[in-house]
Amino acid sequence: MALIVHKYGGTSMGSTERIRNVAKRVAKWVRAGHQMVVVPSAMSGETNRLLGLAKELAPSKPGDAYYRELDQLASTGEQVSVGLLAIALQTEGIDAVSYCGWQVPIRTNSAYTKARIESIDDRRIRADLAAGKVVIITGFQGVDAGGNITTLGRGGSDTSAVAVAAAIKADECLIYTDVDGVYTTDPRVVPEARRLERISFEEMLEMASMGSKVLQIRSVEFAGKYRVPIRVLSSFTPWDIPIDEEARSGTLITFEEGESMEQAVVSGIAFNRDEAKVSVLGVPDKPGIAAQILGAVADANIDVDVIIQNVGKDGRTDFSFTVHRNDLARALDVLKTQVVPALGATDVVGDARICKVSVVGIGMRSHVGVASRMFRCLAAEGINIQMISTSEIKISVVIDEKYMELAVRALHREFDLDQPTDTLQGA
Amino acid sequence: MALIVHKYGGTSMGSTERIRNVAKRVAKWVRAGHQMVVVPSAMSGETNRLLGLAKELAPSKPGDAYYRELDQLASTGEQVSVGLLAIALQTEGIDAVSYCGWQVPIRTNSAYTKARIESIDDRRIRADLAAGKVVIITGFQGVDAGGNITTLGRGGSDTSAVAVAAAIKADECLIYTDVDGVYTTDPRVVPEARRLERISFEEMLEMASMGSKVLQIRSVEFAGKYRVPIRVLSSFTPWDIPIDEEARSGTLITFEEGESMEQAVVSGIAFNRDEAKVSVLGVPDKPGIAAQILGAVADANIDVDVIIQNVGKDGRTDFSFTVHRNDLARALDVLKTQVVPALGATDVVGDARICKVSVVGIGMRSHVGVASRMFRCLAAEGINIQMISTSEIKISVVIDEKYMELAVRALHREFDLDQPTDTLQGA
Repeated sequence: MALIVHKYGGTSMGSTERIRNVAKRVAKWVRAGHQMVVVPSAMSGETNRLLGLAKELAPSKPGDAYYRELDQLASTGEQVSVGLLAIALQTEGIDAVSYCGWQVPIRTNSAYTKARIESIDDRRIRADLAAGKVVIITGFQGVDAGGNITTLGRGGSDTSAVAVAAAIKADECLIYTDVDGVYTTDPRVVPEARRLERISFEEMLEMASMGSKVLQIRSVEFAGKYRVPIRVLSSFTPWDIPIDEEARSGTLITFEEGESMEQAVVSGIAFNRDEAKVSVLGVPDKPGIAAQILGAVADANIDVDVIIQNVGKDGRTDFSFTVHRNDLARALDVLKTQVVPALGATDVVGDARICKVSVVGIGMRSHVGVASRMFRCLAAEGINIQMISTSEIKISVVIDEKYMELAVRALHREFDLDQPTDTLQGA
Repeated sequence: MALIVHKYGGTSMGSTERIRNVAKRVAKWVRAGHQMVVVPSAMSGETNRLLGLAKELAPSKPGDAYYRELDQLASTGEQVSVGLLAIALQTEGIDAVSYCGWQVPIRTNSAYTKARIESIDDRRIRADLAAGKVVIITGFQGVDAGGNITTLGRGGSDTSAVAVAAAIKADECLIYTDVDGVYTTDPRVVPEARRLERISFEEMLEMASMGSKVLQIRSVEFAGKYRVPIRVLSSFTPWDIPIDEEARSGTLITFEEGESMEQAVVSGIAFNRDEAKVSVLGVPDKPGIAAQILGAVADANIDVDVIIQNVGKDGRTDFSFTVHRNDLARALDVLKTQVVPALGATDVVGDARICKVSVVGIGMRSHVGVASRMFRCLAAEGINIQMISTSEIKISVVIDEKYMELAVRALHREFDLDQPTDTLQGA
């Protein structure tokens, strides 16, 4: 008997017929003797419907009071899901009870529409599990210290599921999704992409943050912090496949580093075209300029990803970074009106037609030459590199977006990712 | 400056366009200097949609666990409404905040789908009002001592509004609805029916319980208990009519008896064809039979309305009462299987083709002869009376349902209800 958390996305919850199938799948796990907690998302389309209604009425300058109401509104989508799933389980003859975030409670900070989980009280959950019930908990939402409903932002249900799994020390958190696992890269770009049986938590973190949309990045961070084993698997398999088969399907995100990726230097290629490049040109080359530039950008609530500062020349240097494309106009405005005059810089330029391509792999730590192999591969394809950023387990380059698919395919081939390699477990 | 509660029904909240109009109307009251609390229902159709989803998944033998989930589900309808209305008010430049039942909290017992309000904490509401905010509170729902969401049953939003008004000692509770007040009888039956400017709380209680569907009866009981003045008025008037005109429109349900109905002996004719008649025949005429018969019916959770026991003959008597038509079959079953054998009664008969017609009026207390005038009027129309039940302020008769409209029209004319009489306030 294990303590298991299941997370189901909006597609799995998209109709009463599908909810019935989720209930049958959960019931199968219960009958196999497991203690079950289930975290479903809102029925597909529901969150968008609710936010659409709000948008029709929204003030032109929305403030905190508005975002509070958005969360009040949007959180109902998951509340409907948990109620329906509890009912469907009861109809399967399984004792089930549903809770909203505030009922657990799942405590968050007060950052409406993008709150962060601070703590989860496991007492109510444990009591119900001990009483033989399946506990169904809303994803995506929580409650702040003032008793206001908060939501975790898009994809937050993954985070909820992992956080609940951490709080109750679950043996595994199974994320049922519309892909059957984590791939070496996006199969829509590289048809030869392979599903990984296992991936280390750190690699997954890089893959998720690079735009591999399988899991929300915060859920992976949470899993890392609390060492929750996550399995990403398909919700499209029939509910009645043998449970042993289901329990071994998908991709396990693991913390047992040694076992997993020893032989593969690179485990995946991630890419992302959501970013734009900003360069502040002719910045006086003196201490404190990075803080001044990025401070102004952070004050405007704009997240920065890759940051590059080159060696200066003639007392001047160029300073570049990437931001989300949606923030480009605002970033340029902040820089032009505040930073350039204050610093005495020459100019600011932005470019949205870029993409970021990364090779990710724990194996890089002990294998030299991955970077040069990557750069040589791109050069052979005639692709110019605009920015480079490295960490212990990934190398990212920023290139012209028109070369994105070409670069991903070339790198996938270069690092032999279409060849099965993770057979080292003897499985 | 007054402290005012507005209640809006599902039709008023039926679309973002209508919600915008509700916001404009509330904003008008705020700008006139009033402190405002608003209790909206779910958007029309929403509660049915949610319960429909539940029904598709429901177990064949629903128990308490199921009804708990129904409330979890159904309560989201009002949660969406309050969020949207708060946003619409913010867009009007009005500071507004919304609360679910559990956030206030509105404490209820644990009778899922038909809970009763036990207490309302007014601290959060008062603090927000003092800070100049409009407070928007979900109708229809509350929270029990265990932190479970409960709902008050159909029409419960009226009760919520009146209960909130009582808790904060509001000056008036305005119920915006799809009729423009309380009428002497249903205008669909008697076109000459007139709107009453005022009606006493006790008369309203009789009118509401008799099937005048303007207000949920429990809300009227609540208003009586806490002496909350209620005004029933139309939500179809344009939002921008002068506030003085709006504040005097509709029907005021008042506690200042003296002022209101002095001259009118009868203020209205109520009627109802939701009931069925049950007669237990040949009951031994001895002490305790009423308790035995009605005890068995009450144990089966069936509400009884009119009860008649006639003088006995030869040691036997007949005992009749009315129940809701939906309960007739069950009541007959209980009586046949349990009561008749135990009592040694002769038989049980039921009749669903009846209706109840009542004349209601505080004035009856001091005017003799209302009953005989009523019976004479019905006799003149050839209508046979099957049962009679009286109270200080109403006389009800049970008659064949085919005579209902005829009886109502005749009585409306008989008591001069088509003539304006309540001009005594000099208005």
